[in-house]
Amino acid sequence: MYSDVVMEVGKKYFEELIDKMKAEKGVTQDVDLTADDLKELASQFKAEYKEKIGEDFPDDPKEQLMGAIKAVFRSWDNPRANVYRRDNDIPYSWGTAVNVQSMAFGNMGDDCGTGVAFTRDPATGEKKLMGEFLTNAQGEDVVAGVRTPMPIDQMADKFPEAFEQFKEVCKILEDHYRDMQDMEFTVENKKLYMLQTRNGKRTAQAALKIACDLVDEGARTEEEAVAMIDPRNLDTLLHPQFDANVLKETTPIAKALGASPGAACGKIVFTAEDTKEWAARGEKVVLGRLETSPEDIEGMKSAQGILTVRGGMTSHAAVVARGMGTCCVSGCGDIVMDEENKKFTLAGKEYHEGDPISIDGSTGNIYDGIIPTVDATIAGEFGRIMAWADKYRTMGVRTNADTPGDAKKARELGAEGIGLCRTEHMFFGDRIDAFREMICADTVEERAQALEKILPYQQGDFEQLFEAMEGDPVTIRFLDPPLHEFVPQTEEDIQKLADAQGKTVEEIEALIESLKEFNPMMGHRGCRLAVTYPEIAVMQTKAVIRAALAVKANHPDWDIVPEIMIPLVGELKELKYVKKTVVETADAEIAAAGIDMKYEVGTMIEIPRAALLADEIATEAEFFCFGTNDLTQMTYGFSRDDSSKFLEAYYDAKILENDPFAKLDQNGVGKLMKMAVKAGKETRPDLHCGICGEHGGDPSSVEFCNSIGLDYVSCSPFRVPIARLAAAQAAISQK
Amino acid sequence: MYSDVVMEVGKKYFEELIDKMKAEKGVTQDVDLTADDLKELASQFKAEYKEKIGEDFPDDPKEQLMGAIKAVFRSWDNPRANVYRRDNDIPYSWGTAVNVQSMAFGNMGDDCGTGVAFTRDPATGEKKLMGEFLTNAQGEDVVAGVRTPMPIDQMADKFPEAFEQFKEVCKILEDHYRDMQDMEFTVENKKLYMLQTRNGKRTAQAALKIACDLVDEGARTEEEAVAMIDPRNLDTLLHPQFDANVLKETTPIAKALGASPGAACGKIVFTAEDTKEWAARGEKVVLGRLETSPEDIEGMKSAQGILTVRGGMTSHAAVVARGMGTCCVSGCGDIVMDEENKKFTLAGKEYHEGDPISIDGSTGNIYDGIIPTVDATIAGEFGRIMAWADKYRTMGVRTNADTPGDAKKARELGAEGIGLCRTEHMFFGDRIDAFREMICADTVEERAQALEKILPYQQGDFEQLFEAMEGDPVTIRFLDPPLHEFVPQTEEDIQKLADAQGKTVEEIEALIESLKEFNPMMGHRGCRLAVTYPEIAVMQTKAVIRAALAVKANHPDWDIVPEIMIPLVGELKELKYVKKTVVETADAEIAAAGIDMKYEVGTMIEIPRAALLADEIATEAEFFCFGTNDLTQMTYGFSRDDSSKFLEAYYDAKILENDPFAKLDQNGVGKLMKMAVKAGKETRPDLHCGICGEHGGDPSSVEFCNSIGLDYVSCSPFRVPIARLAAAQAAISQK
Repeated sequence: MYSDVVMEVGKKYFEELIDKMKAEKGVTQDVDLTADDLKELASQFKAEYKEKIGEDFPDDPKEQLMGAIKAVFRSWDNPRANVYRRDNDIPYSWGTAVNVQSMAFGNMGDDCGTGVAFTRDPATGEKKLMGEFLTNAQGEDVVAGVRTPMPIDQMADKFPEAFEQFKEVCKILEDHYRDMQDMEFTVENKKLYMLQTRNGKRTAQAALKIACDLVDEGARTEEEAVAMIDPRNLDTLLHPQFDANVLKETTPIAKALGASPGAACGKIVFTAEDTKEWAARGEKVVLGRLETSPEDIEGMKSAQGILTVRGGMTSHAAVVARGMGTCCVSGCGDIVMDEENKKFTLAGKEYHEGDPISIDGSTGNIYDGIIPTVDATIAGEFGRIMAWADKYRTMGVRTNADTPGDAKKARELGAEGIGLCRTEHMFFGDRIDAFREMICADTVEERAQALEKILPYQQGDFEQLFEAMEGDPVTIRFLDPPLHEFVPQTEEDIQKLADAQGKTVEEIEALIESLKEFNPMMGHRGCRLAVTYPEIAVMQTKAVIRAALAVKANHPDWDIVPEIMIPLVGELKELKYVKKTVVETADAEIAAAGIDMKYEVGTMIEIPRAALLADEIATEAEFFCFGTNDLTQMTYGFSRDDSSKFLEAYYDAKILENDPFAKLDQNGVGKLMKMAVKAGKETRPDLHCGICGEHGGDPSSVEFCNSIGLDYVSCSPFRVPIARLAAAQAAISQK
Repeated sequence: MYSDVVMEVGKKYFEELIDKMKAEKGVTQDVDLTADDLKELASQFKAEYKEKIGEDFPDDPKEQLMGAIKAVFRSWDNPRANVYRRDNDIPYSWGTAVNVQSMAFGNMGDDCGTGVAFTRDPATGEKKLMGEFLTNAQGEDVVAGVRTPMPIDQMADKFPEAFEQFKEVCKILEDHYRDMQDMEFTVENKKLYMLQTRNGKRTAQAALKIACDLVDEGARTEEEAVAMIDPRNLDTLLHPQFDANVLKETTPIAKALGASPGAACGKIVFTAEDTKEWAARGEKVVLGRLETSPEDIEGMKSAQGILTVRGGMTSHAAVVARGMGTCCVSGCGDIVMDEENKKFTLAGKEYHEGDPISIDGSTGNIYDGIIPTVDATIAGEFGRIMAWADKYRTMGVRTNADTPGDAKKARELGAEGIGLCRTEHMFFGDRIDAFREMICADTVEERAQALEKILPYQQGDFEQLFEAMEGDPVTIRFLDPPLHEFVPQTEEDIQKLADAQGKTVEEIEALIESLKEFNPMMGHRGCRLAVTYPEIAVMQTKAVIRAALAVKANHPDWDIVPEIMIPLVGELKELKYVKKTVVETADAEIAAAGIDMKYEVGTMIEIPRAALLADEIATEAEFFCFGTNDLTQMTYGFSRDDSSKFLEAYYDAKILENDPFAKLDQNGVGKLMKMAVKAGKETRPDLHCGICGEHGGDPSSVEFCNSIGLDYVSCSPFRVPIARLAAAQAAISQK
């Protein structure tokens, strides 16, 4: 296929080269061109090739063309491009076109120039021509940030005619595409050449404003406006902002360009490698560079924010940071950078690697030290778009929340319930002692006794969740991880447990040893724990039902229907067995309270076998919730904790384009989900189905969930708005 | 449901009780029975109940009946019965009936008696009435082995009329069922009562002879004869026998009843618990008991053989051992047993726990020490049945073999090719050094260099396999386990490797540490190794192709088509990537040799995703082989190495009846297999499909494989005849 493209493009390329030559010479026949003409053209091209590609241009003309085109494909296929595509959901299979056009030269004198421009402000969305240009320069000079360009307005003075024409073209292009345009142009001897136009990259704030403005201008419908926003971009808006009160009393040490909004604070580092390394060990870092280049992309992804010395609003750092939703302050010429020695001087102070700094990507302000941040809220255009999204989406959006704080936050961000509350997170902290006592129990009675101590804590947790959700559904997953995750690790803790249990350290160590597993992911966990220790399910059921009864007593108008979710089910009889324990306990609690309350018992679908036998499982399950983390592990046979050892090789070999744990494998895992939803709903028409794996907050996965008829997705609180928007886009596009 | 059965049976029970009473009193009306009559009957029944059930009979008549019937259900549902059913593929859901009949008394005097008999010899199959009886006794007395019974022939003297009638009944029953009958009878005051008849349990040898005889007698067709044999029983015939040469020169220390054939040698132990425990740690043991009881069943399963002091050919030990295919010598009255002190005396020698002993279940001989054993062969009736099986089966039977010895043995037992050769088993022993060198390699070149050392060994192994299979298909699976399985464990070996590699111990330890995985079963293994280290696949391909070429050069008439099998494939592009390496290497080798040779590249289907996307995978795979061990692990989410921690609880809770790793889960895993075969063959009609998991030698799984259209099953050498027979039975029953 590529060779066809190469030949096709090659033909066009030569034709254009020759046409250009003929035009310059004022001739109409190919034969009118002299050998010298062609030689001149070739040498010009060769010089340029060597400069751009970094290798000599081959001598054979066919080879030459192939070489040039291959270079384009190579650049399209380089590892950084692959990472970029992976991050932006662009399939490798789409390929690329090579568009060969004759060169317009912006560097042939003072009546030449080049520039880039946006029809609206890509940072704020404001409707005004924004851009930068340089005289006697080529495009690279503008975007590389080597020379600091002039604002586009000044083009009116330099090239008045071309500028007038340019403004007209801008309007034509925006009207045509009904979207903000990002254009490149060259002026060669005063004549305007448009090099390219595309829908411009923009900050999330700008995206929201532009979409709303286009609706108000009558250019777009509400649905189109909703569809225009890249849900992944919203992430930035949900990032914390600097605490306004603190900010008022703090003087910035410098001000540069607010190139990509948001607030970032962290330790300063000076290379992309260091950024990755420091971030990997949990440090928050700000990457400081003279200027960034494509080699830095992976490092930039790991940084809280990016600070550059050179480059404008369209520099590499600015464009990439906006695309990533990472805060960026660019063009801070006051900085005296010493990258080699990993330090810089600013406002009279020397900053070394590891020194704390804060940057504001909206204002361009730079602060010494760490400025505290506060959470963002949904208002203004963000609120308008979200309201439209809610109007058009058909799928519900819940949240994964284990604490009242998370639940409250998620509700503010639009969550319509809790899709996953992981109860095990409640066993740590000061409750771990009782839980370890439970693990050490020698008899059912001892185990029940220890669980009795945990019950009030757990009930209290659930009460707070029910309170926070104000009657919206709350799905509580019963204990999932293997018990060895709870045992003490340090000698001191082991001694403490031994003392508390009246056992020897050796006995405790033997117990810990006995809990070890070869493949814990497929071991003694999930509902398997409830089968071997039904007491645990009894305690958890009591906690859920008592909590629901207590909250209902305070809020008789709330329709509280707790959803109890049994994890890791693979077989109908297994669910039946655990459900029996749950129902007996729950019914007894409800009867004892003398209050009429409904509750549901459902299951995670996270074992391939459960998906395959969903028709059977649905006879007992009142709801399904896809645990796509585990389902992906087992469907692929990829251990999430180990797959990083080979996933890079898989990306390099183009076997996989995405981490299936980040982006749902619609082909394989998705097939199982589709089968399960269909079979489950055939058995039980009112079965409600959701997803609570990490995928529930990934836009392309949300789209898939909509297409297979899920009733809701559930994701972490800060991804709720993303899921709401993605669900709306799916509903609109699949209408 | 049970309560319906109880009421139904209860009605019949009372009616029969009353009818019997009426007959004895010579009256026709119920009301003619006195209160004393009923009291007498009740007290008789109560006494018997207490003796049998071990608890008092309740007073309320309805309770009484319920109690009696519940006792039957309890005995049907006890853990031992569940284990027995699990071993014999009897689903729990079948339930049981309770047949209540009036009592015939064999213990009312010397004109009474009871016995059990077989219409043919259950040990040899010889056509003659075989049995034992006791006068003035109940059935329990015969089978418990407490009194030593008389041979059935002597019944002619004791009860001539009843005996004549009995022989007639035997013929009627055998003619009716067209199979050997196992009957129980009682003589009450000289009158014969038949208590039950059923198709008799028999040794594998007897089963073969009886089936052949029934064909020769015109009672059964060849197909029916094939269908009569329980394939699991053949196992005994494939067990080793004592070396005849050694046996000739060895004098037995005692002789008792050859109750279940086969040869067993091992250390003597005295309790079922010890048997389990010793066997679990790899010891071969012979269980010595006064007599066995149902409590001993699990222990009996772990023993090489069973030796009892009391009991005849129909004693508990004898019947159960025959059912299990375990060697048993029973009724050795010469033994002075001291179970409490775990010792016995025989032929003047005191045997303590752990002393070596050998027993021959065919001759009943007992030998001091360990007698060497030799492998069994297929001949006589066994050969006849196997020939019929091959005539009627449509599915091929291959073997899992990694060594030429295994391959040869399997071929003798009828294997039609190798379905799975695990190449990693070839990397241990004196080759491990080169393999470890490969693991330690820092560069591709170093790795290739180390692999170069392994190549000749591997090629030699493959040559021997191709030689052994004489042109039949040989499927070679490429490296499968994670590399950490090959690294040195001891300090000494680590030091040795460090020295050989010119590295420090710390460096080697760091490497070993880096290879560790959280869930190795879903880690960096299978074709994932070939993706990260294509050099390994290159080396293995060279070895396979060079070996095939070399053997073909010696045997031009053999049609050698090596089958290269890529393990753990989950995605088409993954297979495509590895296949490209294989094909390029293989084609180069074949071209260099200048010989025309075909080869196939196929894949294991062992990752659920591969089964789900079999239609895609089949575009590249020339064959599928189901690796049902891994497929079961991932479909169920059960780690095979860890599931024992909860499987017992699953059996107890009746969630599972069988270990899904022993008996294929047709419902779940089988569904995936069925989908994969269908989709694969739709894409590639000549795709051949097999199975090479442990299930390939399990009869019920083989039957399933036949039903979904697999072309072959592959199993360990000694299970090949079992698979052949099971495949024939499947073909016959599914015809």
